[in-house]
Formats: sequence, structure tokens, C-alpha cells
Amino acid sequence: MRIDGKQAAADLRKQLSMQVLQLQQEKNIVPGLTVILVGEDPASEVYVRNKVRQTRELGMHSQEIRLPVDIREEALLTRLEQLNQDKDVHGILVQLPLPAHINEAKVLAAINPEKDVDGFHALNSGRLLNGSGDALVPCTPQGCVILAKRHLGEDLSGKHAVVIGRSNIVGKPLAILLLQENCTVTIAHSRTENLAQICRQADILVAAVGRANFVKGDWIKPGATVIDVGINRIEDTEGKTRLVGDVDYQAAVEVAAAITPVPGGVGPMTIACLLKNTLVAARRYG
Amino acid sequence: MRIDGKQAAADLRKQLSMQVLQLQQEKNIVPGLTVILVGEDPASEVYVRNKVRQTRELGMHSQEIRLPVDIREEALLTRLEQLNQDKDVHGILVQLPLPAHINEAKVLAAINPEKDVDGFHALNSGRLLNGSGDALVPCTPQGCVILAKRHLGEDLSGKHAVVIGRSNIVGKPLAILLLQENCTVTIAHSRTENLAQICRQADILVAAVGRANFVKGDWIKPGATVIDVGINRIEDTEGKTRLVGDVDYQAAVEVAAAITPVPGGVGPMTIACLLKNTLVAARRYG
Repeated sequence: MRIDGKQAAADLRKQLSMQVLQLQQEKNIVPGLTVILVGEDPASEVYVRNKVRQTRELGMHSQEIRLPVDIREEALLTRLEQLNQDKDVHGILVQLPLPAHINEAKVLAAINPEKDVDGFHALNSGRLLNGSGDALVPCTPQGCVILAKRHLGEDLSGKHAVVIGRSNIVGKPLAILLLQENCTVTIAHSRTENLAQICRQADILVAAVGRANFVKGDWIKPGATVIDVGINRIEDTEGKTRLVGDVDYQAAVEVAAAITPVPGGVGPMTIACLLKNTLVAARRYG
Repeated sequence: MRIDGKQAAADLRKQLSMQVLQLQQEKNIVPGLTVILVGEDPASEVYVRNKVRQTRELGMHSQEIRLPVDIREEALLTRLEQLNQDKDVHGILVQLPLPAHINEAKVLAAINPEKDVDGFHALNSGRLLNGSGDALVPCTPQGCVILAKRHLGEDLSGKHAVVIGRSNIVGKPLAILLLQENCTVTIAHSRTENLAQICRQADILVAAVGRANFVKGDWIKPGATVIDVGINRIEDTEGKTRLVGDVDYQAAVEVAAAITPVPGGVGPMTIACLLKNTLVAARRYG
């Protein structure tokens, strides 16, 4: 079975748009997301455009702030501080990557944790790790869990989940989320020995390594649920570029019970979960 | 081989006492640890007494604040805020458990993260998860890693570590530390299926479940390193109470290459790592 991330994202957006309406009716709050884009990286512009469009479609306020590529770090931090104070701004997202002269960690740490809809602030990471329930959780991992549940149902308890990759954005927070879902969780990475053998134990296998077709068909336990976070651009034999995941889809689809395609799997969920975080922030702190 | 936690703790304290001296000579800073004890729980009094004594033995300042069991939460928070501001206090530890009328989470969150030598504040948890290098790390997990390295050497890279238990104090932070050491890490817990089989994969097996003799000898891979975090009081056949770990030591010692005893294993390391954190805090922020 193919797990349809586009449909899952559409379903989530539909839910969210009703909740946005409800929040407006009950508390007169319209969730607002501000996206900061520094410079003119074309890929970043596409992402930001998509975020802005989808935010509006849900009935939320959307604000896009474009800053020159040579902006001083201090000026960016000042702008952030204004947004931290602004009552109408519930979510702040700084589009990465930032120009090299700006300290990314410093900028992310300067976002008010209550508005940190990317969930990258250390305070949100810590709340996630400690399970205190008040974290804003990184978007891609949230999307992965929703997609796994789309096939397996709400209860993931007792499943063995293997996460390949240990980034701050995907691997580590996803491992913590799956642990909260009562999965047994294994985190594997570039230094893991016998990776294939470890993957073959997975009821839920998540690949987040950024290497095209890295996970082979025979690494997958028959009947497993496979979530492919990778988005890799490769050239096919005719010289055309196309997007593929971290999993060899053609081989994997024969073995797995369910698998997310690339594109159309995890990707669409990420923005939908960003909008969810904006709603959560507006509800909680708005 | 028996991993001698008492000796490891003594070695660490010796190192620390030299570093304390050095910090005093170079920067005229004497690390200071303040322990707050609310009420008169006898077990807590023993812990606090040990902490105070060892702090002094290392040449650090030690302050013990005793507060009545019926203190109002507000008053405790006010006292904490004074300590947060006090330049001579580098580490603050609130001895747990607190009386039932006090919100433990709220109190822990009120400690200045720079002085949070228990490493329980969400900001420190998040820094640990994100690997930003500026966390104050919970003491028992630190001790576990030191003990594992005492047998395996500094490089744990590629080892498969299985941690049984997912508490905020031990299991989760330890899993993150082992991941930083480039171990492949599996976190198992009460909902894990085929636990014995999962444990048998472990090059490093850590038990932190709080159940006497829970881990059997045949759950251990021959040649594994076993770290036993449990401290359980049981009655023997003659009605005498004694302390045992989470691992069936007699059986395990026949299979494992190295194992920590209980008592005399992880226990002594915890206070030593608390003193280490106090030194780190004094160096970093003093």
C-alpha cells in the first residue's frame, strides 16, 4: 500500500481550517504566521511561497518579511525581538539556510519559544524530550507519525521502530515521538554496524539520511511500514533529473505493507504540520 | 570483570579536586553548591549529608538550606530566585521528592538553567538533545557512560547500546548521550515486545527499570558490558533486607565481560557527577 501524503496533508488542513474558524468564533483569535526570508535563494523562495499560500488558504494571517542578504545579525535579531513582542504574531519561522555571516543557532535561540513553530528552540526540544506536553514539536517528525498511523491506526504501542538518521530536525525528535507512542525505538546512523540486519527488525522503518535509494528492499521486514523522509535529486539514464527518496521504492513496495512515496509522502505533511503548530501556538498563548 | 564504581568515583573526585584548585588559582572562583531540602525525609537527609560532605572534601563551597515541610510554593520559589541571583552560588539542587502540595515541575523550571546541576531543566534537556555542547547533563547518565568507558575505552562508536527504561532522569538522557558517543541506541521499556531478544543484541546493556533482578543471565550477550542503574531493597530468605540491582548479578557476571555491582556501581558516580556539573557551571558562568 502506498501511504498518500498529499491526501493526508489535505485531510489535516481541512481539520485545521475548521479549528481556525472555531478559535476565531470562540476567542476572536486569528492565528498568524510570520515567515522571515533573508536573501533570495530560489529554493527558499519556493518554500516560503508555498507556506504563505497554504497559511492563507486555512484562514490564518500570513506575513512574509524579506530581508536583504547582507543584513547584519544584530538587525535580524532586533526584527525578531519586535515579532516576539507582537501580539498578532503567533508563529515565527526563519527560513533556513541563513547567509554564512549570520549565526544560525543564535538566531533560532532568539525566537520566543512560544512562537517557535519550527520547534527548533532548545526549550521546545527539552519539553519534547521530557514529555511535558507543552512542546512545539518539529514538523517533519510530526508528519511521519501521522503517516505511520494512517496505515497502522492510532496505537503504535509495542512496535519496533527503527529510525535511520539522527539530525536535530528529523531523526532525534522523531525517535522521541515514537517513544512517546510506546514504540521500542532504535536510532541508527552512519556509524551503525550491521545496519541491514537492524532495519530488518523494524515494524516501522524511517529513513532520514539524505542518500538516494540508500535503503534496499531486502533490508525491509515483510509487512513493515516504511516512512521515507529523504528528498534527493538524481539524474536518470536519459539525463533527466527527478526526485527520489532514501528508500529504493520499487524494491521496497514489494516487501513492505505500506510505504510513503517520494514525492507525495512526507513532504506535503511538513507544511501542514507547520500550520498545525501555528494553530497550537495561537490557542495556547494567543 | 566487575566495574568498580567506588573507585571510578574516587578517581573522578581526585581529578575534580585538582580542577577546583586550578579554577581558584587562575580565576579566583570557588565553585559553590547549594542544596535545598524541604521537610525531613530520612532518606533525603542521608543523600543531602553525603552531597554536602563530598562537596567540602573537594574544596568547593557547600550550602545546605533546610525549609519546613509546610513551606508555601511561593516562598520556595522566592528563595530559589534569590539563589538564582547569588553570584557565589554556581549550582542549585532541590532535593526530590518535594511535599505533595508543591508543584515539582514548576520548581525545577524556576532554577536558573546555568545553575541547574541536576540537568533537569527543559533548556538543559533540549541542549542535550540538540547536541549544542552547552547542556548541564543529568548526573546518573553521565556516570553510566564513564563506567562503560572504564571497561570499553574512550571510543564507543558502533556499539549497539540497549537502554531499558525511559525516565527523564536516566533512560532518555542516557540514550542521547550514548547516541552522541556514536552508539546505535535502542530504548526499550515496559511496552517492549521480545525484550530478552532485544537485550541479547546489546554490546552495552543498561538496566534502569527499578525492578529487582529483572534482567536475566540469558538476556545478556556473551562479552557484553552491563550497567545496572537499579537500586532495589529486597528481603532475603532469612528476612534480612539488602540492596540488589535490576540485573540478576550472579547469573549475569558469568556471561558479561564487565558489569557494575549494586551497591558500589552506578550509585557512587551520581554524586561525583553532580560535583563535576557544579565545577562546569562555575567555570562556564562563574
